[in-house]
Amino acid sequence: MNTKKVIVIVSGGMDSATLLYKVITDGLEPYAVSFNYGQRHVKELDYAKTFCSSLGIDHKVVDLSAILPLIQGSSLTSSDIEVPHGHYAADNMKSTVVPNRNMIMLSIAVGYAVSIGAGTVYFGAQSGDNSQYRDCRPEFLDRMDRVTSIANEVLVHIEAPFIHMSKTDTVKLGLKLGIKYAGAWSCYEGKERPCLRCGACSERAVAFRDNQVADPLLTPEEWKEALQIVEGVV
Amino acid sequence: MNTKKVIVIVSGGMDSATLLYKVITDGLEPYAVSFNYGQRHVKELDYAKTFCSSLGIDHKVVDLSAILPLIQGSSLTSSDIEVPHGHYAADNMKSTVVPNRNMIMLSIAVGYAVSIGAGTVYFGAQSGDNSQYRDCRPEFLDRMDRVTSIANEVLVHIEAPFIHMSKTDTVKLGLKLGIKYAGAWSCYEGKERPCLRCGACSERAVAFRDNQVADPLLTPEEWKEALQIVEGVV
Repeated sequence: MNTKKVIVIVSGGMDSATLLYKVITDGLEPYAVSFNYGQRHVKELDYAKTFCSSLGIDHKVVDLSAILPLIQGSSLTSSDIEVPHGHYAADNMKSTVVPNRNMIMLSIAVGYAVSIGAGTVYFGAQSGDNSQYRDCRPEFLDRMDRVTSIANEVLVHIEAPFIHMSKTDTVKLGLKLGIKYAGAWSCYEGKERPCLRCGACSERAVAFRDNQVADPLLTPEEWKEALQIVEGVV
Repeated sequence: MNTKKVIVIVSGGMDSATLLYKVITDGLEPYAVSFNYGQRHVKELDYAKTFCSSLGIDHKVVDLSAILPLIQGSSLTSSDIEVPHGHYAADNMKSTVVPNRNMIMLSIAVGYAVSIGAGTVYFGAQSGDNSQYRDCRPEFLDRMDRVTSIANEVLVHIEAPFIHMSKTDTVKLGLKLGIKYAGAWSCYEGKERPCLRCGACSERAVAFRDNQVADPLLTPEEWKEALQIVEGVV
């Protein structure tokens, strides 16, 4: 088995972009996989595609639309539930949870790993995800790794190297690695421009602010507004 | 939460048919789900459909064809790999393993459970599956249950009540419950009639033989031939 082969789950956002750079820097050979699970912000997949292509990485997009009727109830996938505005750790962000989403994505990625002889599935969850998303917590990923390690004839592990890092730390690492974050999409709304007000936008703004760097995806006016929003000025 | 609601993964075969009867007998309210993962014996899904319909049970079929390109290498899903003949526990049966299949199916079923407020996902694995399929072993299902129990805002468990029973015992239970096993399909080949020679056919024949009942799916001639095959006469 070629143990340099690894699977990286890539959303099109900043954490998985950083993860992709990290595994390349570590000398591994990533195979990227993204999921269309009916997310409003499906445009993140275009960002994922362009990002992987710019790095010359094999990238698969898995269409999960067939399972959508079974996993309803999230504002990220239902047009009749509004995406909440506010701080990413606030209680109203619960509506953005998609039932069992990460277990579904990880299990498919593990099947892919077995199929191509990759030994690890990398997942970009970071500590800021923990408050709302149980399937981003260390104990979830630890238990996923424990079951994954005995599920197939070949050994596959799940690694989430950012699980104890904040988004600010992840961006710090990415900036050091030279990542162009203009190529990463976060906003849950998925409109023409970032809404600046959803949980994903607020977390992103905090991460750049705390790194004392303007978000390169935004215009100077948008960046100014994003800062005012997270500081509660507007 | 209506704790009588449960999900049952139904293949169209004998174990899950028995499981469906069992949960109904136990006073639960089953929602059946089946998966089209590109199996040769996709006709099992017609059996699943007819079986559920005869019991008046809600039945969903999830089309996983979008993930097939990622989980290759099994004789059950690749037309260029032959289905092996012989005893179901023989070493050459390994080619019938589909990479991480059961974790994928279970994770989607858990998402479905969360979505409709069901507290348990029932899975029909029995002890005869253990030798070839790691994702049918007690330790796999135990670890799946452990991760499932913390993956979502609501508690969902995985139950595999036949995990320590042989197929003979499962059929014994089913016969006692009055199940018409002519409505359950097993053969991996998925042709017009059962091949009588694949692992699924051989295991089925042994289970009926040991219950001293003829397989009601087979003609008397086929049953006689099936017995001769498992006894090594032909």
